[in-house]
Amino acid sequence: MREIKIGIIGLGTVGTGVMKILSCEGTRLQKHSGVRFTVKRVADLDITRDRGIQIEPEILTTDAKKIIDDEEIEVVVELIGGCEPAKSYILGAIQKGKHIVTANKALLACHWEEIQDRAKEHGVEILLEGAVGGGIPIIRSITSLLTSNKIRSIFGIINGTCNYILATMAKEGRNFDEALQRAREKGYAEADPSLDIEGVDTAHKLVILASLAFKGGVTLKDVYVEGISKITPQDILYAREEFGHCIKLLGVAKEWEDTLEIRVHPTMIPENHPLSDVDGVNNAIYLEGDNVGSLIFSGQGAGQMPTASSVVSDLVSLAQRIDRPSNHPLISDVEPRKKVRPIKELKTKYYVRFTTLDQPGVLAAISSTLAKYRISIASVIQKERGPEGPVPIVMLTHEAEEESMVRAISEIDRLEIVKAETLLIRCEEMTTTN
Amino acid sequence: MREIKIGIIGLGTVGTGVMKILSCEGTRLQKHSGVRFTVKRVADLDITRDRGIQIEPEILTTDAKKIIDDEEIEVVVELIGGCEPAKSYILGAIQKGKHIVTANKALLACHWEEIQDRAKEHGVEILLEGAVGGGIPIIRSITSLLTSNKIRSIFGIINGTCNYILATMAKEGRNFDEALQRAREKGYAEADPSLDIEGVDTAHKLVILASLAFKGGVTLKDVYVEGISKITPQDILYAREEFGHCIKLLGVAKEWEDTLEIRVHPTMIPENHPLSDVDGVNNAIYLEGDNVGSLIFSGQGAGQMPTASSVVSDLVSLAQRIDRPSNHPLISDVEPRKKVRPIKELKTKYYVRFTTLDQPGVLAAISSTLAKYRISIASVIQKERGPEGPVPIVMLTHEAEEESMVRAISEIDRLEIVKAETLLIRCEEMTTTN
Repeated sequence: MREIKIGIIGLGTVGTGVMKILSCEGTRLQKHSGVRFTVKRVADLDITRDRGIQIEPEILTTDAKKIIDDEEIEVVVELIGGCEPAKSYILGAIQKGKHIVTANKALLACHWEEIQDRAKEHGVEILLEGAVGGGIPIIRSITSLLTSNKIRSIFGIINGTCNYILATMAKEGRNFDEALQRAREKGYAEADPSLDIEGVDTAHKLVILASLAFKGGVTLKDVYVEGISKITPQDILYAREEFGHCIKLLGVAKEWEDTLEIRVHPTMIPENHPLSDVDGVNNAIYLEGDNVGSLIFSGQGAGQMPTASSVVSDLVSLAQRIDRPSNHPLISDVEPRKKVRPIKELKTKYYVRFTTLDQPGVLAAISSTLAKYRISIASVIQKERGPEGPVPIVMLTHEAEEESMVRAISEIDRLEIVKAETLLIRCEEMTTTN
Repeated sequence: MREIKIGIIGLGTVGTGVMKILSCEGTRLQKHSGVRFTVKRVADLDITRDRGIQIEPEILTTDAKKIIDDEEIEVVVELIGGCEPAKSYILGAIQKGKHIVTANKALLACHWEEIQDRAKEHGVEILLEGAVGGGIPIIRSITSLLTSNKIRSIFGIINGTCNYILATMAKEGRNFDEALQRAREKGYAEADPSLDIEGVDTAHKLVILASLAFKGGVTLKDVYVEGISKITPQDILYAREEFGHCIKLLGVAKEWEDTLEIRVHPTMIPENHPLSDVDGVNNAIYLEGDNVGSLIFSGQGAGQMPTASSVVSDLVSLAQRIDRPSNHPLISDVEPRKKVRPIKELKTKYYVRFTTLDQPGVLAAISSTLAKYRISIASVIQKERGPEGPVPIVMLTHEAEEESMVRAISEIDRLEIVKAETLLIRCEEMTTTN
């Protein structure tokens, strides 16, 4: 039986999961792939910590270069995350003709083109199922759908931390800080949660999905990113009770005429849309293809074993191709990129929450400013009233241009009657194909 | 560029869709596969009807043998459906060394082992993404998940007609016949809808999914099948309002100790389970793997272009392997089969609707019979009362064994106070992994 020697760089949560599957499921893996995988070397800065698995000490090293320089190792599994030193390790391994399996979304999002180009030059493959959506087989689904579809749009709930926080705010009426604290207690948020709550992690994953689906060489700089920390429980309540919507942090990539919209922000979506039911730390990706219509994939978007499951599936895909080189890698080439539509040109409906004094003339002042920028109002609610202090005025607009919207809000926010920065949430009226 | 000549048998709805994609998307397909597909011949009994696509008349034939005997044709796409003559055509093509792409669920369900064995003998592959779930890439997802997971269970809403009928009954309070009529008017039900409403089509697809996921050489005879025609709008109402459940026709295949449960029947599922939201003619498959946790795939389960999209994706998968033969076909071998657990050994909770006279002592008679068979009642509802005529008594049991349940009901149905056959609906308390 053909043996494939692999090296694993990074023995953290996912790396340990990969070791578990490779050691417990060796027989099944051989049956499915016709190949025996041997982990020849594992590199990590900490090789003494007990991870609850048995690893022969002689394969452990603190020096990743021992993997990269090992002629026998054909596949490098990179699971340390972040840009450096992961990028140097991967480029080094590519140069030595090794195939790469990685779950490193930040690296791929920031250096997609460079890594793909180098891999092509050296005739090796980069597989990355674990980088987006944990155990959900979204990468291979997109690459296979692409062969018979033009993908029109992708909407993803692809950050479990944010989804948990928004769901907790919605269910329990907690404010953002309380919900974040709960996420921390449950182990769903990092000590420094900023990459998650500011939308950057979602943007990383969106760049990967969009690069695959739209073959556009999308980069992180193309993505408009806005996080969830300004959302209040009142916004969630108004969205639901007054407008029949819920608020999710979405990664959106969609064709608009000959441009590509690519953005991450809290989004109002209709409550009857399947994405509105995605609960807790789950992930879900909704996509539309011209032939296939709309599809939804959902599951655990993170965690040791789901992500490790994706990494091992990639190993098997590679094994089935490793002795039969093809000019057509599993992850295809970058085509000439589409123009990215600047966020200021976006046309959508908006949910707007103003914080104003509770006095006559306030609505007249706001609505006349909106009218000046040709923004028309679909509905207005002012429920809370108090003898003193500012009150919220909540509004849903008809479709308006982002640039006009931003200018109008900036002018309104300078009015004396306005007591806090106005919150805008974009709406996405996703149509299902049925 | 490598050219692959294909023959298409069956130019119905899906066949026409495949022709559309191959002719409109030729360039993209070449880019993705590194191969040029040429449709050398198309066979159909009717080669004169206008199908809204351009086909050169000289490639059309009424004789499928012209495809099977053509040495140049490497791949046969079989889209006529049903067992014969499809089976003879497929076996004939296999014998000539041709690869097969098919969407024929009935044939695969009835002759899975024979067809797989012959394909193995002749070193050809059988791809079948279009056979289950229309455009949902469920077959390739299962085969790829399998490499790093033991699949524990599959629950599928895989017949759009039944889902539409049950959803219409639920939303509009219509009875079964009215909802079926609506499905017919919308083109969602065939002139003879019996294969759909009796659960046979679901069983076909379930056999395919289970054969892949459990590698058990599952056959149609292993499947317990029950259709939806006995469900009333009242059952749906009680399920929802009294028990917080909805009723779906599910295909269920799951491990239970060292056996496999495989069954198709109307099923009560909790309203907060994602499958309960699957609307209209959509399909959804929920599965659990030991590493990946639970995943859901949903989308359009039928229709010309979604199914054609799956068929073309299979062509591309084949093209990427055709000159690089492997001992490991995309769809793997059948392993020694698991014992199928007889339905009478099933242990589950039941929803039971009795139709009885409205008089004292009725509940005592029913509950004492249930007690005799050690079936304990979780709750009882008797809402409707009338001065004359039978009334429904609705019950939810604790977990009970099917055999005892069936005996108890049969004894109860012989009581004078019982005026119509009692309806049983099995409950499935599906746990999500979060």
